[in-house]
Amino acid sequence: MARPKPLSGFPEFLPAGRIVEQRVLDIVRETFELHGFASIETRAVEPLEQLARKGEIEKEIYVVQRLHAADDDTAELGLHFDLTVPFARYVLEHAGHLAFPFRRYQVQKVWRGERPQEGRYREFLQADIDIVGQDALAAHHDVEIPLVALDVFSRLHDELGLPTATIHVNNRKLSEGFYRGLGIDEPSAVLQRVDKYDKIGPDAVRDLLTDELGLEASVAQRCVALAGISGSDESFVDEVRALGVEHDLLEQGLAELAQLVRVAGSEHVVADLKIARGLDYYTGTVYETFLDGSERLGSVASGGRYDSLASDGKVTFPGVGYSFGITRILAPLIAKGRITATRSVPSAVLVAVDSEDRREAAIAVAARLRSRGIAVEVAPKADKFGKQIRFAERRGIPYVWFGEDSVKDIRSGEQVHADASSWLPPEADRLPQVVAGQ
Amino acid sequence: MARPKPLSGFPEFLPAGRIVEQRVLDIVRETFELHGFASIETRAVEPLEQLARKGEIEKEIYVVQRLHAADDDTAELGLHFDLTVPFARYVLEHAGHLAFPFRRYQVQKVWRGERPQEGRYREFLQADIDIVGQDALAAHHDVEIPLVALDVFSRLHDELGLPTATIHVNNRKLSEGFYRGLGIDEPSAVLQRVDKYDKIGPDAVRDLLTDELGLEASVAQRCVALAGISGSDESFVDEVRALGVEHDLLEQGLAELAQLVRVAGSEHVVADLKIARGLDYYTGTVYETFLDGSERLGSVASGGRYDSLASDGKVTFPGVGYSFGITRILAPLIAKGRITATRSVPSAVLVAVDSEDRREAAIAVAARLRSRGIAVEVAPKADKFGKQIRFAERRGIPYVWFGEDSVKDIRSGEQVHADASSWLPPEADRLPQVVAGQ
Repeated sequence: MARPKPLSGFPEFLPAGRIVEQRVLDIVRETFELHGFASIETRAVEPLEQLARKGEIEKEIYVVQRLHAADDDTAELGLHFDLTVPFARYVLEHAGHLAFPFRRYQVQKVWRGERPQEGRYREFLQADIDIVGQDALAAHHDVEIPLVALDVFSRLHDELGLPTATIHVNNRKLSEGFYRGLGIDEPSAVLQRVDKYDKIGPDAVRDLLTDELGLEASVAQRCVALAGISGSDESFVDEVRALGVEHDLLEQGLAELAQLVRVAGSEHVVADLKIARGLDYYTGTVYETFLDGSERLGSVASGGRYDSLASDGKVTFPGVGYSFGITRILAPLIAKGRITATRSVPSAVLVAVDSEDRREAAIAVAARLRSRGIAVEVAPKADKFGKQIRFAERRGIPYVWFGEDSVKDIRSGEQVHADASSWLPPEADRLPQVVAGQ
Repeated sequence: MARPKPLSGFPEFLPAGRIVEQRVLDIVRETFELHGFASIETRAVEPLEQLARKGEIEKEIYVVQRLHAADDDTAELGLHFDLTVPFARYVLEHAGHLAFPFRRYQVQKVWRGERPQEGRYREFLQADIDIVGQDALAAHHDVEIPLVALDVFSRLHDELGLPTATIHVNNRKLSEGFYRGLGIDEPSAVLQRVDKYDKIGPDAVRDLLTDELGLEASVAQRCVALAGISGSDESFVDEVRALGVEHDLLEQGLAELAQLVRVAGSEHVVADLKIARGLDYYTGTVYETFLDGSERLGSVASGGRYDSLASDGKVTFPGVGYSFGITRILAPLIAKGRITATRSVPSAVLVAVDSEDRREAAIAVAARLRSRGIAVEVAPKADKFGKQIRFAERRGIPYVWFGEDSVKDIRSGEQVHADASSWLPPEADRLPQVVAGQ
């Protein structure tokens, strides 16, 4: 067949990019597990009627059918478009075998039939954490989520050089309580306008509130003032109080959000009272996350509290969750070459082959090195040594082993006697390193 | 919604089963990388016309379409049913950016619309390795594959208690050369009958060869005799020679297979000259693998040499590969409870909470433990200590931390003073262990 063309919206990495992705996923998994989250995977397909329950996303679903569907094939299936719908189904299906509160993480591809564009993919990788309770879930779990996210982003920055990130947090109770305290009956109509704050600015939002919703100028002004409040410590509470609005729901939201920023205690976790997106879906805390310096990418990780993740009619499962858009974060960095790996193969050592009848000796040397966890490949051809060295160079393999007892660092040219049963490369050479691109 | 029912053919694991699967995949990945294989992932979908090229599998393909497909959506897509077709496409698409011979591994789900039955799934996980060359690929690479497979299966056995496995190897050149040396013009017709050897026995195969193909009794007898030869050292070569057939292709196949079993040097790698399945597709070495004691499951890992993995008309890419059926191996072991994990969560420690106003102190203790790589969760509720201990017990968490400086092994009841900034659990308790089921 002719050279195939890439499918738009379905990103794939070359081996060096995949090494970056693997290292990111290792850190994500390790951090989730340090916080006590257990891994699950769900099947890629769900019944179509479950997927289509959220009306607005319906057009983005990929339907899955057997090419020659038989009569017994009545189930209509679609690919999952997030990891929340399948997790809710998993919780209901297996509730009897799970211990609640149940802390799970899930790292899987999801599919959406959206028109592909920058930052939008048809197949992409998400890494989700959720804590779900049976009937009830204490508010303090909302505080845990940003602690995990902080740990993940700070390790990705410190260990792999990814950009730092800032988690913006708001609380539906706070906004709704504030609006109700002002005598507003339809808080969601206000939220829809406040959602445009970043795009059109505070004055234009105020005009929308007065013109479209008929709010008094002083009321609209206070809604806009609320949206303008942000901060990474509890001082935001006094700023809200200074606006002179009182409501029980507002107090509850203030207390929850204040506790969250106090416990996080980081300039990378900010209370940001203009965060409105998702407030319709979520019922308390909401999170959005921006890469510092790449805010125009939009939120790369988000989530929040929902009073009912799932319900079987008798039991309700409230939850709080957060989803890292792994592809959304990595695909632009890798595609633009801003981040890469020091080599395209895991091998730290290439064992040279003098002549084809000495290949079995080379295989034996390789086995001795591997027994101590060193990644090794044997040269595919008994070429001249110069050619074998260039083979290693092209892949970024740092060491070439010659004969029984000699190893060369091909970067420095230094060659030393060594015993294949005890030699170790420096720790930094053992695995490919993730580095800034050229 | 009501309690959902599982979808037949789409296995999912509970958290303890998933821990087993993760541990297996860690070993698979680590071993592949020790042998210098680089990871890639391909998208889940391929153009339907590529998937449907192999006629016999056509009915098993899952077609993927947007629920509301637009006019611009002309590409017909299907879910991949193996990892070979997408890998061949990846090689052609990215050949200019890859270094050959290219050694890759790929661990992904695949989908087949087969009727689900024991050992057959509609969604299952495969772990593939392939070595692919540009224009040529030396025969010695066929010897590498079983060395990797041996390493994987022996680690799965030694470290996780999975059954041992035996890799059965044959060579298309050997069989075809033998048949041609006997004057047979259609070797594949003979192979199709020999393929029934295990099921119907040698005598019945001989009858098929004489009755259906019209072979002379003495010729048929020698074909059956060849199929009966097996062994884990080079002595099989003399047994073949004793049948008195000569042909260049036979000699070539004998040399390749003899080298393979000699280098492997293991009773778990046997030359088995009745292995016929796949010989039509493969062009040289073929591998099948059976779990010792569970041979009735059929081959759980297989592969072989193909002269043309892919071709763009100008360049041909020959390869040799092997695919581990991860779900096929694990799903029965996990479902029957023959293998499980010592706990259902990663947490080694539960930090108890005295009272809700001391929660932040517990969170601080947890952070200090995590900084040394200990997986920790904080108790969700400031219950009586007995209740918090039972919370840990139910999940298999071995340690409960009390206050600032006290940790209890809840299995032995032993409680000791400890510093959260230096205490470490015994290595065996750090991660959940994979163990035989009860």
